[in-house]
Amino acid sequence: MYKGADIISALQFTRSDIERLINYAEEIRCIYERGNRLNVAKGKVMFTAFFEPSTRTRLSFQFAMIKLGGAIIDLGPEEVTSMAKGESPEDTLRTVDSYEPDIIVVRHKEPGFAAKAAQICKTPVINAGDGYNEHPTQALLDVYTMWRFFGHIDGLVVGLMGDLKYSRTISSLSYTLSNFRDISIYFISPRELKPREEVLKTLDQRRIHYEFYEKPEDILERLDVLYVTRLQKERMSLEEYERLKGSYMITYDYLKKFKKIPIILHPLPRVWELTPDVDILPQALYFEQAKNGLYIRMALIRTILGV
Amino acid sequence: MYKGADIISALQFTRSDIERLINYAEEIRCIYERGNRLNVAKGKVMFTAFFEPSTRTRLSFQFAMIKLGGAIIDLGPEEVTSMAKGESPEDTLRTVDSYEPDIIVVRHKEPGFAAKAAQICKTPVINAGDGYNEHPTQALLDVYTMWRFFGHIDGLVVGLMGDLKYSRTISSLSYTLSNFRDISIYFISPRELKPREEVLKTLDQRRIHYEFYEKPEDILERLDVLYVTRLQKERMSLEEYERLKGSYMITYDYLKKFKKIPIILHPLPRVWELTPDVDILPQALYFEQAKNGLYIRMALIRTILGV
Amino acid sequence: MYKGADIISALQFTRSDIERLINYAEEIRCIYERGNRLNVAKGKVMFTAFFEPSTRTRLSFQFAMIKLGGAIIDLGPEEVTSMAKGESPEDTLRTVDSYEPDIIVVRHKEPGFAAKAAQICKTPVINAGDGYNEHPTQALLDVYTMWRFFGHIDGLVVGLMGDLKYSRTISSLSYTLSNFRDISIYFISPRELKPREEVLKTLDQRRIHYEFYEKPEDILERLDVLYVTRLQKERMSLEEYERLKGSYMITYDYLKKFKKIPIILHPLPRVWELTPDVDILPQALYFEQAKNGLYIRMALIRTILGV
Repeated sequence: MYKGADIISALQFTRSDIERLINYAEEIRCIYERGNRLNVAKGKVMFTAFFEPSTRTRLSFQFAMIKLGGAIIDLGPEEVTSMAKGESPEDTLRTVDSYEPDIIVVRHKEPGFAAKAAQICKTPVINAGDGYNEHPTQALLDVYTMWRFFGHIDGLVVGLMGDLKYSRTISSLSYTLSNFRDISIYFISPRELKPREEVLKTLDQRRIHYEFYEKPEDILERLDVLYVTRLQKERMSLEEYERLKGSYMITYDYLKKFKKIPIILHPLPRVWELTPDVDILPQALYFEQAKNGLYIRMALIRTILGV
Repeated sequence: MYKGADIISALQFTRSDIERLINYAEEIRCIYERGNRLNVAKGKVMFTAFFEPSTRTRLSFQFAMIKLGGAIIDLGPEEVTSMAKGESPEDTLRTVDSYEPDIIVVRHKEPGFAAKAAQICKTPVINAGDGYNEHPTQALLDVYTMWRFFGHIDGLVVGLMGDLKYSRTISSLSYTLSNFRDISIYFISPRELKPREEVLKTLDQRRIHYEFYEKPEDILERLDVLYVTRLQKERMSLEEYERLKGSYMITYDYLKKFKKIPIILHPLPRVWELTPDVDILPQALYFEQAKNGLYIRMALIRTILGV
Repeated sequence: MYKGADIISALQFTRSDIERLINYAEEIRCIYERGNRLNVAKGKVMFTAFFEPSTRTRLSFQFAMIKLGGAIIDLGPEEVTSMAKGESPEDTLRTVDSYEPDIIVVRHKEPGFAAKAAQICKTPVINAGDGYNEHPTQALLDVYTMWRFFGHIDGLVVGLMGDLKYSRTISSLSYTLSNFRDISIYFISPRELKPREEVLKTLDQRRIHYEFYEKPEDILERLDVLYVTRLQKERMSLEEYERLKGSYMITYDYLKKFKKIPIILHPLPRVWELTPDVDILPQALYFEQAKNGLYIRMALIRTILGV
């Protein structure tokens, strides 16, 4: 990763990229936790273009930029309407690119949109989610959270649970983990919602050990990390849904049945699949995870801006 | 009031809090009216989370923060949609709190929401309206406006008019006024829309003199201040509405019938209850009132940030 | 044009105003293209109030202000809802004006709204579009783009095409061009959609040569500039629409039939009237035009702020 780079896919990340970013994030965190403040992005502008609504990711990028001393300009949600009037998102981006922001953060429901945006724009583009395809900065904060807890990524046993087929965080996280040694990935999902072929193929090429499970209880005690994502009713047959729904709801009572509880991560927002009573467990790290997102994005922004 | 305080209810305010804030607001005003500018909030971030739409209050806080040299990040209205997707506002706030803003300003339709937010967040929370319950910073600017006009608050005779039951400005203003000596409050409203029991009880405890009226003409000439709020048709019986509506519309012609016209305040926005022809009267202070909101909020922000 | 001026109509612009702004824009561009940066608007606040949705113009003003080191506060789209609750835009502006921004940029669907806003507000107001009436800063960037390409405005032959009756960019551009010598304007539109009487009358008074055409092919080779705007089906009889629609769609193949192709401008957003295959032609200057908007608006902001 280098100054001016586009961040489109987690497949771009090398092990040393990830390690460097984590170290950088730790340094920045250290400065801010002591109450100090960097002002390195002064005079720089981030443009956030969320063609698909977002709260968490947009705010995380905006806080990261503002805390580095930079400024933000947001496309705004009325764009959704303006789009309806007929302008293509490509024209919108090309125009804004001509205003010369220093970074463009883009989310769009179309897989491949971020790559297209990067082609159109001279400004560095960060993919903040392109449909079911990828969400590379989410994967960075996920592994950063694992690193902070375990002190390493190598050797971790990670369960990824939920709708693995249409989840962009699952593909990006799988790619990111595949840079490390002795990783085991346990995919926990209904049969219809296993990860997409391209994801499994990449793991095969990179010789990552993975297995499939239908229910978390069959594997939970062997996990270091349980990564929970939302399971949408609409994605499965009603029969399948009825059979499995209980297993895909992680509650305090459910977890307490096991001898060993892995750390629990979730990209958030959560709906019913992870209940608030879990929050009191020491293994519940999803709000920590959100906070880690702030620091890793600050590290990424500094890298791309070269400041 | 102190550095890091949450501002949830006007019941928190002591007389000396209010006086100190007013003096502080006057000092800040003096600096800005001479064309100078403070930059004391440089590097600080205010997060504004209006789960219920707002223009005036949100902009007032944003201007106050920006004018002090700070930065703002807004939840944005698309949140309304994002909420519909199922995330709880509690999760949203907890996440944003982890990004460590310096102040969170929150509005929500649920009474008690601001108190809940303050419990969830390490960041100081300011209540910008929680349903019909309270709107403490509005009360601050209301008494600041009275103070600027009369030079004191003690002894004022204040008429509060409109829907007093469901108005958060009425409860917060009553609580705030109750810190002063020899205050008389005349509640002018339809019978069904008298202030809530908890408000009257507090006034009783604090030995504040109050009376009830149904029509402003019965008391208007004895008032120093007429505080007008909106009266919504839906809140009353049709019969009651037909009988009273004329009395709850303050117009130029209506006011001109009286020998003595009190100063007219309104939290704004106004709809039909206060007509634009009143604006030319010297007693029409509601736009002054909005401007006072800027300075008192700047004073409050400085106090909470400790800058 | 001077410090503190309202910018309401292109009729305000004199030849020397325009020339001074263009020179100023070139200077600013030069600084920014060398990677340097002005910080002259530090501590100044621009308030953007788009009562009618906008992307491009709003973002262009926001980028201009931020790049000069200033801050922006936006009314936000929820206002549309808040308006529905009944507050008048006049009250909204009067309130915000009391918060003392340094510039207010306003768009509203009502012709004459910007003039009204300027009367209400002590703050300088820039008209960013008032219904079909005017859009003066768009005209500035249009002539700036012509000047950059040709090195002069005098003597240019300009074709204005589309819905000329209800287009605010057409009236403002016609007024702006009328300050120059030997200008010829060819209005290309369906009969029902010729420019409004007040526009033609001004051109007559200023002795500008103009003619009317129904199809661009009848005049295209004589043009220096073809200024394309959107043609809405709803504005014409169905019969007329069927007869003309082919002529109002500018495509690569259409243009390639001509010996001489003028430069193509468009205020954007485009829909079907200008196809993306035109973008590769060297005459396609509409994205350049958008970028020029950034610099001319920076020049205008500096002039109004006096910084």
